[in-house]
Amino acid sequence: MAETRTAPEALKPGAQLGSSSFMQLPHVSAFDELDIAIVGVPWDGGTASPVGSRHAPRTIRVMSNRLRRLHPLLETSPFDMCAVGDVGDVKIDPFDQAKSLTAIEAFYSELASHGVHPITAGGDHLVTLPILRAVARHAPVGVVHFDAHSDTAEAGSDGSRYTAATPFRRAVEEGLVDPKRVVQIGLRGTVRSNERNRWARDVGMRQVTMDDLYKLGLDGVIRAAREIIGDAPAYVSFDIDGIDPAFAPGTGTPVIGGLTTYESQRILQGLRGLDLVGGDVVEVSPQYDLNDLTSLVGASLMFEILCLVVDAQDRRRKTKRSA
Amino acid sequence: MAETRTAPEALKPGAQLGSSSFMQLPHVSAFDELDIAIVGVPWDGGTASPVGSRHAPRTIRVMSNRLRRLHPLLETSPFDMCAVGDVGDVKIDPFDQAKSLTAIEAFYSELASHGVHPITAGGDHLVTLPILRAVARHAPVGVVHFDAHSDTAEAGSDGSRYTAATPFRRAVEEGLVDPKRVVQIGLRGTVRSNERNRWARDVGMRQVTMDDLYKLGLDGVIRAAREIIGDAPAYVSFDIDGIDPAFAPGTGTPVIGGLTTYESQRILQGLRGLDLVGGDVVEVSPQYDLNDLTSLVGASLMFEILCLVVDAQDRRRKTKRSA
Amino acid sequence: MAETRTAPEALKPGAQLGSSSFMQLPHVSAFDELDIAIVGVPWDGGTASPVGSRHAPRTIRVMSNRLRRLHPLLETSPFDMCAVGDVGDVKIDPFDQAKSLTAIEAFYSELASHGVHPITAGGDHLVTLPILRAVARHAPVGVVHFDAHSDTAEAGSDGSRYTAATPFRRAVEEGLVDPKRVVQIGLRGTVRSNERNRWARDVGMRQVTMDDLYKLGLDGVIRAAREIIGDAPAYVSFDIDGIDPAFAPGTGTPVIGGLTTYESQRILQGLRGLDLVGGDVVEVSPQYDLNDLTSLVGASLMFEILCLVVDAQDRRRKTKRSA
Amino acid sequence: MAETRTAPEALKPGAQLGSSSFMQLPHVSAFDELDIAIVGVPWDGGTASPVGSRHAPRTIRVMSNRLRRLHPLLETSPFDMCAVGDVGDVKIDPFDQAKSLTAIEAFYSELASHGVHPITAGGDHLVTLPILRAVARHAPVGVVHFDAHSDTAEAGSDGSRYTAATPFRRAVEEGLVDPKRVVQIGLRGTVRSNERNRWARDVGMRQVTMDDLYKLGLDGVIRAAREIIGDAPAYVSFDIDGIDPAFAPGTGTPVIGGLTTYESQRILQGLRGLDLVGGDVVEVSPQYDLNDLTSLVGASLMFEILCLVVDAQDRRRKTKRSA
Amino acid sequence: MAETRTAPEALKPGAQLGSSSFMQLPHVSAFDELDIAIVGVPWDGGTASPVGSRHAPRTIRVMSNRLRRLHPLLETSPFDMCAVGDVGDVKIDPFDQAKSLTAIEAFYSELASHGVHPITAGGDHLVTLPILRAVARHAPVGVVHFDAHSDTAEAGSDGSRYTAATPFRRAVEEGLVDPKRVVQIGLRGTVRSNERNRWARDVGMRQVTMDDLYKLGLDGVIRAAREIIGDAPAYVSFDIDGIDPAFAPGTGTPVIGGLTTYESQRILQGLRGLDLVGGDVVEVSPQYDLNDLTSLVGASLMFEILCLVVDAQDRRRKTKRSA
Amino acid sequence: MAETRTAPEALKPGAQLGSSSFMQLPHVSAFDELDIAIVGVPWDGGTASPVGSRHAPRTIRVMSNRLRRLHPLLETSPFDMCAVGDVGDVKIDPFDQAKSLTAIEAFYSELASHGVHPITAGGDHLVTLPILRAVARHAPVGVVHFDAHSDTAEAGSDGSRYTAATPFRRAVEEGLVDPKRVVQIGLRGTVRSNERNRWARDVGMRQVTMDDLYKLGLDGVIRAAREIIGDAPAYVSFDIDGIDPAFAPGTGTPVIGGLTTYESQRILQGLRGLDLVGGDVVEVSPQYDLNDLTSLVGASLMFEILCLVVDAQDRRRKTKRSA
Repeated sequence: MAETRTAPEALKPGAQLGSSSFMQLPHVSAFDELDIAIVGVPWDGGTASPVGSRHAPRTIRVMSNRLRRLHPLLETSPFDMCAVGDVGDVKIDPFDQAKSLTAIEAFYSELASHGVHPITAGGDHLVTLPILRAVARHAPVGVVHFDAHSDTAEAGSDGSRYTAATPFRRAVEEGLVDPKRVVQIGLRGTVRSNERNRWARDVGMRQVTMDDLYKLGLDGVIRAAREIIGDAPAYVSFDIDGIDPAFAPGTGTPVIGGLTTYESQRILQGLRGLDLVGGDVVEVSPQYDLNDLTSLVGASLMFEILCLVVDAQDRRRKTKRSA
Repeated sequence: MAETRTAPEALKPGAQLGSSSFMQLPHVSAFDELDIAIVGVPWDGGTASPVGSRHAPRTIRVMSNRLRRLHPLLETSPFDMCAVGDVGDVKIDPFDQAKSLTAIEAFYSELASHGVHPITAGGDHLVTLPILRAVARHAPVGVVHFDAHSDTAEAGSDGSRYTAATPFRRAVEEGLVDPKRVVQIGLRGTVRSNERNRWARDVGMRQVTMDDLYKLGLDGVIRAAREIIGDAPAYVSFDIDGIDPAFAPGTGTPVIGGLTTYESQRILQGLRGLDLVGGDVVEVSPQYDLNDLTSLVGASLMFEILCLVVDAQDRRRKTKRSA
Repeated sequence: MAETRTAPEALKPGAQLGSSSFMQLPHVSAFDELDIAIVGVPWDGGTASPVGSRHAPRTIRVMSNRLRRLHPLLETSPFDMCAVGDVGDVKIDPFDQAKSLTAIEAFYSELASHGVHPITAGGDHLVTLPILRAVARHAPVGVVHFDAHSDTAEAGSDGSRYTAATPFRRAVEEGLVDPKRVVQIGLRGTVRSNERNRWARDVGMRQVTMDDLYKLGLDGVIRAAREIIGDAPAYVSFDIDGIDPAFAPGTGTPVIGGLTTYESQRILQGLRGLDLVGGDVVEVSPQYDLNDLTSLVGASLMFEILCLVVDAQDRRRKTKRSA
Repeated sequence: MAETRTAPEALKPGAQLGSSSFMQLPHVSAFDELDIAIVGVPWDGGTASPVGSRHAPRTIRVMSNRLRRLHPLLETSPFDMCAVGDVGDVKIDPFDQAKSLTAIEAFYSELASHGVHPITAGGDHLVTLPILRAVARHAPVGVVHFDAHSDTAEAGSDGSRYTAATPFRRAVEEGLVDPKRVVQIGLRGTVRSNERNRWARDVGMRQVTMDDLYKLGLDGVIRAAREIIGDAPAYVSFDIDGIDPAFAPGTGTPVIGGLTTYESQRILQGLRGLDLVGGDVVEVSPQYDLNDLTSLVGASLMFEILCLVVDAQDRRRKTKRSA
Repeated sequence: MAETRTAPEALKPGAQLGSSSFMQLPHVSAFDELDIAIVGVPWDGGTASPVGSRHAPRTIRVMSNRLRRLHPLLETSPFDMCAVGDVGDVKIDPFDQAKSLTAIEAFYSELASHGVHPITAGGDHLVTLPILRAVARHAPVGVVHFDAHSDTAEAGSDGSRYTAATPFRRAVEEGLVDPKRVVQIGLRGTVRSNERNRWARDVGMRQVTMDDLYKLGLDGVIRAAREIIGDAPAYVSFDIDGIDPAFAPGTGTPVIGGLTTYESQRILQGLRGLDLVGGDVVEVSPQYDLNDLTSLVGASLMFEILCLVVDAQDRRRKTKRSA
Repeated sequence: MAETRTAPEALKPGAQLGSSSFMQLPHVSAFDELDIAIVGVPWDGGTASPVGSRHAPRTIRVMSNRLRRLHPLLETSPFDMCAVGDVGDVKIDPFDQAKSLTAIEAFYSELASHGVHPITAGGDHLVTLPILRAVARHAPVGVVHFDAHSDTAEAGSDGSRYTAATPFRRAVEEGLVDPKRVVQIGLRGTVRSNERNRWARDVGMRQVTMDDLYKLGLDGVIRAAREIIGDAPAYVSFDIDGIDPAFAPGTGTPVIGGLTTYESQRILQGLRGLDLVGGDVVEVSPQYDLNDLTSLVGASLMFEILCLVVDAQDRRRKTKRSA
């Protein structure tokens, strides 16, 4: 007797995720095949208002597909130099901050234990804290930090110690970041209190305001950043609100008078040769975006950072071989 | 001597397509595993202005992921009843109309030769013509046609015989469609000439204008459509401008006074039991859309049509077994 | 035997390419060649906030070019039955309300003295007052008035007697309108005071709220309107906020729960046979519009009203000849 | 010697909140002066994606100022019948779900202990649960529930028991709601599983799908709802996605084929005479809104519910006096 | 016998205005408590088309709440140095230009008679004329004027002498402004006639075009402006179209090739130490804005100007004491 | 002695009201009356995705009416120096690439045979190829080419030889362009392959990347461009994506880090004195535009190019007379 024919298991919805990857990279779940991983952290659990950067990993991935594989200043593609894969999104708990922080740290620790360097699409700026807990678990790192704000508050406006305004204060306190090897670029705008900037400078961070930037010139900023970072491992954290809202409108806390995209790219490219071990682009908020422009900016900056980390990895490998 | 380590082949960009499928269905390229195929035709080569429905297959697929697997009136999911897969987009030549028409027909003929029924996301309404050449290659079909316009012009305003205004005239002339088994629902608005409507009625098509629809009531329209279509094979072609622009703003030729989405869904559901062999949703233009609403409407209507074709296929299979 | 007088060749739509006139009608400045004139009144001098309907004549004209020359229910085009031209915009003084009111009245009086019937794209609802001063200079007219509001306030919220909230009170006071031959359709929503509605009913106006409309049905509303208007001359004034904001978002005072575009068109079509001497569509605000949909609605309704006035003119002419 | 003159304390920023209240109602913090309180709950802590209804209390309040004080069907204003004030927003903890649920319940319990009936602007649908914990702390209430979804899931898709998909399951389990006195209106669309609807019907809830609604007619729905609710206290919970996205685009989970705003208002008005003790409008997401239309819809519906609760309160008072 | 209890007077709608103030400043109506007043002038009665800057005072106030109380270059907040309050909007007559000009002048004269310096959110540029009539009633002032246009036309294109294109010509003619102490920054773009620029230069105004600006450099522009203004009292008038439409899209007359927001802020900050007695930001048009960015720019520039005037006031006070 | 020839009265802007021509120029069809023609080419037949520049001629014309007749650096209007008319759009066949290429070439050849210099609003960049076939039919021209991309690919990504990525390769192969007299300004961003840039440089084109531009400075770029172009005839081709998407969002292939509008205008103005024989602005896509800003940019750049060509024509005429 014939049975009712049904769809084979492999054809059922959900059997294959089918989401767009970053620059059409392969989805990879076996971390030992990778040098560098693209990771999404769809979480804005450090943000009271306006919310929405949790949606950025998807839109940044979509817009990354407007990019082509060759960087304008490289003769070869980064994908020919290193094994790069898109490992998808960290599974967070949208209803529980503590669990989410733990889950993010665990995910990146797993990557780190395989020697994989992460390039992250946030999420809000609090995601950088658990990433640093993994990346800097053996020794504090330096940070090249692009932002309109220093994110070194003692607490958010409601007293919370873990918010998008506090990650670098916590990171210094936890010994994840060497404050003397931190440079903050793009600072500007009004502040609630001067305490957070004063603290940052007191512990040794170098703050490059927009006024400083135009006084130093781009080459001067690059020179300063390279001196501050030096030869030891460093991380790049790019808050999209470092860029002017004319160029990157899709963010929750726009501040006028910021970086252009050209300036951002030029400074990033000037970091070539540093020992970069990972980076992130955070605070893109698709709901406030226009024509997905900010997601395109985010994807373009991730590609710049990726090229820097690929280059560093390539040098590390050559050094090891020659040793 | 150690060689430079490069990324394994499988990790190179492009090795895995990674685009979103319809309702997270599996991407399938082996047609013999399928009963029903979701197809995209990213082509608006029958449209002079305003252009853009070529972008709809992508946005409809994205918005389809807002849908869940159970239809509200069914107790089981269509994906449990038939083998349904997303076979991707037809590869067309955006610079050559004739080649594109041939390519579309060839793709659907291949599906037809495997007994696979197509549910299509257009594209403009001209894509229905090469689809019908494949679907109706053995015998003319009936058509349930939702639209503000009859699309039975002799030629476009510039004299072209193959445009989005002419597919059903060509289809009748080519013997693909039995005009006495055609019902057009949603017709309204000003016209350049009465000739095209007169021709349609002269060859036997039934035209249900919006005034007719409100006179008959939804049940009356359903009854009329079922009588006209009868027991023989039929196709559903849904031009999104059949729906009012308040409900489906993203289209190039909006006409006020149209169907609501509820009315559209109710009429479609009323076609249950007919011998439906395929269908399409065409003329969604993402550039004119608001909040991707029209792509959501398009995906929702494709799911309605899919359920109808699944149901028909299920009955065909049972009939065969009992025979 | 006298032949039916038709529009001279030079006045047919399409005779002049590339202009931004209503439905590509010829620009006409010699009024004695015309039966019916399309007029723009780019003035919102009766509006405190939110402002912007002064921009509607341009956008309505642009969107009117999406319409075709044949009305769906007519076998011939209105442009074949009467001489219709676009006479451009009334030149108003944006900085002086009194001068503008005078200029509008003067323009329409000139039209009236040539026996030309006006179809107007406003502007806010105050423009209807000076139009009525010209149209009804010999005898009061009836009015079919579509609106969410009765516009019969004694004064605006700041005490001004000439605002978009007062035109029909002034018109009755000035003897331009016979309140017993006024029907107001689409009334709904909250009010500042009941006085203005009470006054309207006290002087004899018939108010058809949305609740009334669904109780009567569209045919009932049409029947009531025809009875109220009777055989004497009447004017159609359509405030776009009579329509629901889902269908006509571009207006300054949206009120939910309104007419659909279909209902609006059906009721207008039901006025066929009345002695209509002109009409207007007012309160379209392009700045609040989405995809120019409301301008398309405005143009479509102007075309409906035009067909009604053409039809009335045609009958008047035939009556005269047979007399 | 003169001291440096500084600004007096009263002039410092923040000394006066200055935010817009609902319909320009007074800000009130002394609950014993009130019969009815307008409350904002700027929290979407039950939502994984897409997020944003936490921003709705502000936009609904802004758009409420487009409304006027007289309801179209009442001869007097609700504000003349009861003491109504805007008590501002509940202070929640955006980073902690459990604390937020507790804070919301505490706030409403305080209102309840003063005999104040709440009308709430959410927030996502999870906010209804802690509100019901306060409102129904003495006895279970009936609920008139407008929604596209039944919100009676056992858990969200990630297993969480407290999400915007579960409030009415929890409320029944906690004895806050009498399921036999629940009517759900506007249900439609695809579902992940039938279990949640089956559970709802099994415990006695009445589900009125859109198909049911058009079968019953609006008067039939009203009659059914009145019978189900009966004479005992009841609450109105209005998820904005019960309304069609053409009429209310600003929500995170749009489902086509929904209620019009007119239908929603008519059904609400039909509840007059029931013993209503509070209500809410939830799931408005300003980021997805167009022209703030959905916030206007939300404000308009809150005003409808307010009028119902005012009316019930007025009757309760009269009953007490006559007793 | 118990009377029907009604809401106490204090609870009636409208009893408390409840609109958002600038940077959460206190609403102040007693002018003698103030050093500096924030004023809104919701009037665009000098604009024929495109209209809408009358809506800017509200949106600028809303977006000002994104700013924090400390200026990045100051160690203390301006609100600690002077008594600053938001005195609300000038009550104008939207239907009468002459009355509105009188009302604005009267309001500012009242402020001036109390020694209060105004910082204004316009409105179009014509509002600057009546403000100057009050501010400069004893002696002509200098003006630092940011704009794409010189606004020194003899008349608008329709012959009107009081429009947004003429305020500085009128102000010179009326002896309110010393043309030799005027610097215009940001001029560019096509012109109807050279007469207005020639006149400006002939009476002694210094025009800094965008080409001049890049030739001089920002420091050169600042130096030039300081020399031109000198030690006597001066006013800052900032037409938002001085800024490039990429940075400030929300204005009626965008001209490409303009100032960045950074350049604008830097030049303003360079004016520190001048004897500034007031300022305005005009021509923001919210209807054309994207994401309220232009309102944020407007609020940010008002804060810059406020800090300059606070600083000047602080010096005046100290001088007086030391005298 | 011969007088300077000026435009006949009938050709001056404003002579014909209410048309939608470029800067209100007269519509001209008799080419022998003209020195310079504004032409629209509503065709994007070289574009696979995203499509839409075919709609730009209309929107650029509309926005051109925001411009005034005097260029800021000229003391007279270009329309006083030459006979300039708007000759409308080339009639293309949207369904046939080969026919369209032929039609465009034929139209421009007709212009060329009358000695009329064309200023074009595209369309995509493929339209430049048939224009060059006409303009350079006697001898190859130099090209000042603004673009993010070099457009010198051998073929599009699908193998097509005639796409918007190939026009300058084809033009060099066909001997229309002297590659040693080509300068490409604004190049940047990722590429699919380096082959197309290498080819361009190998045949002698000068590529000025954004990095080069900031190294050279604007004056350096102008100097370089003038040297490369020299004294022989040259053409200006401006792809709008040469400009940064913050300044010109409405294009299908945005690349961050591009030219500002000021830089674009300054470089164009620096070309004064070259023997320019025509120019175009291409790749404006109105569907992706915000506030029509990109169409305004396009119109403004066309006016800059027009002034250059008018100036060159004026010199040619004077040279001829003095000869």
